[in-house]
Amino acid sequence: MKVKWKYSYLKKDINEIEYTLHQTVNSSQPILKDASLQLLQSGGKRIRPLFVLLSAKFGQYNLQSIKHVAATLEIIHMASLVHDDVIDEASLRRGKPTINSTYDNRVAMYAGDFLFAKALECMSEIEIPEAHQKLSNTILEICLGEIEQIKDKYNYEQNLKCYLRRIKRKTALLISASCEIGAIASGASSSIQKSLRDYGYYLGMSYQIMDDILDFTASEKELGKPAGSDLIQGNITLPVLFAMQDQSLKEKITSIYEGINPETVKPLINQIRKSSFIKEARRISEEYLNKSLKCIETLPDHEAKEMLILIAKNIGNRKN
Amino acid sequence: MKVKWKYSYLKKDINEIEYTLHQTVNSSQPILKDASLQLLQSGGKRIRPLFVLLSAKFGQYNLQSIKHVAATLEIIHMASLVHDDVIDEASLRRGKPTINSTYDNRVAMYAGDFLFAKALECMSEIEIPEAHQKLSNTILEICLGEIEQIKDKYNYEQNLKCYLRRIKRKTALLISASCEIGAIASGASSSIQKSLRDYGYYLGMSYQIMDDILDFTASEKELGKPAGSDLIQGNITLPVLFAMQDQSLKEKITSIYEGINPETVKPLINQIRKSSFIKEARRISEEYLNKSLKCIETLPDHEAKEMLILIAKNIGNRKN
Repeated sequence: MKVKWKYSYLKKDINEIEYTLHQTVNSSQPILKDASLQLLQSGGKRIRPLFVLLSAKFGQYNLQSIKHVAATLEIIHMASLVHDDVIDEASLRRGKPTINSTYDNRVAMYAGDFLFAKALECMSEIEIPEAHQKLSNTILEICLGEIEQIKDKYNYEQNLKCYLRRIKRKTALLISASCEIGAIASGASSSIQKSLRDYGYYLGMSYQIMDDILDFTASEKELGKPAGSDLIQGNITLPVLFAMQDQSLKEKITSIYEGINPETVKPLINQIRKSSFIKEARRISEEYLNKSLKCIETLPDHEAKEMLILIAKNIGNRKN
Repeated sequence: MKVKWKYSYLKKDINEIEYTLHQTVNSSQPILKDASLQLLQSGGKRIRPLFVLLSAKFGQYNLQSIKHVAATLEIIHMASLVHDDVIDEASLRRGKPTINSTYDNRVAMYAGDFLFAKALECMSEIEIPEAHQKLSNTILEICLGEIEQIKDKYNYEQNLKCYLRRIKRKTALLISASCEIGAIASGASSSIQKSLRDYGYYLGMSYQIMDDILDFTASEKELGKPAGSDLIQGNITLPVLFAMQDQSLKEKITSIYEGINPETVKPLINQIRKSSFIKEARRISEEYLNKSLKCIETLPDHEAKEMLILIAKNIGNRKN
């Protein structure tokens, strides 16, 4: 997916965002500098900044202003990843050691706080109250989702509604906010703001469901971490919820506990990977995708609109 | 100290802030609700909101607007306490169980994030870019201080400069920001903003040094935690830095390590409590206090000015 947009008409702007990101998270404090740069260099698709830029194209596009919004959204995403890795006790992200594994949980907690603060500093360049309100509201919802996620871990009684609410807060809201704040900050009309917000929401839902599918179907190399990590860490995702409809699979799934030897779960992961439940989950992801495309049908014709459609269509085919 | 201003002319406004704080940190999420309310009800002197209100008196005072700033500053303070308690593995704060001890470190990390987000949401009611810039900058410095604090723990090679920089970030900057943002948000002149900022900075330094002294001299009941906790947790404070000038004390101090049995440190804590080093530290605290008073000499006569002077003078006599 990255390749597809890397050579698009936004290439120069995306490079500028990358530069802004490096400048912003830099610090004279050696640990924070190393930790932040390690995180930046480990890649990531930068889809949130991309959505900010594309959405801003529907208003008065000004890179020197909008780049602050784009960097803010990516840094908030980074901050939440750092804290999530503490909770998940993850040692790898995108194939690189996590901050909690390189240093410890305490450094990772404060590094997350630091990134969060950097994001705010970056956003304070934007003087539009509505954009700040939207951002703070989104961050709040993400935090609520994070607490719920702890409660939901290894909880095999949860239902589809619970899962959907979780991924909404975990992923969809920040992508939706990227689109909406991009539109707000560029002064796009309120109907355009709404279309982009809804597009981002549905796309984010589709994206996270695909992520949860790929955790089973992609290779360790593609994922940058062992396949099936979600299940081992007690994150009950859509393929797992579907798989629990099968009584024999359900028994195996519900016997997974915190601290289980990952090797013993491998056969089950393989079984789910080959099952029809993956296809079922994919179908739900596609439904959300179609909804997202529908939301932007009424947007004026623009290269940015074509890109938004292209990105949505690529979500279904991505490998990592 | 609390009693002194509780019956002041700001009593009604302070009560309104308390109400705003309760409203703001409330949550439909049960864990977050309990954790936040527990933290609020455990007290605290609310000096940051008080400084916001008093500073705002030098501009166009509007409680319905400034209360958001006051609540924001207190909630950011609360958020940083929650994360600090994780780092310090503290089980008590103000005599009440900490969030990390009631729940666990993971909940405490996210509860801190949640409070942080709530603070931002509250601040987004204020539409003055300068106030946001000041706030984000302050939060950033606090985060830098937190990381440095981890590095400085049990580091007996540190000097006075290192300690002063640490307490500046830990305490003085947020008090200084409370004063300055209170002034900014009420549209006070820039020279008044500067006077109040400097007052808050020096007062914050004095306040933290007194805090570090009280950790030795106050009773467990007054502190709400065992006396000498700082030393046991590896926080090298001003009385300790001075005590290390004595070779025999230095040997005892530098033999304290993480996880040491607190009982074995008690005689040393008593020795420091009774030493002249406490008086030396108190003298430095008083120096900062005098500087803070000097900063507001030129402020126009006002009941708020008298209160600022009164608070500063009370810092030296406080018991907790």
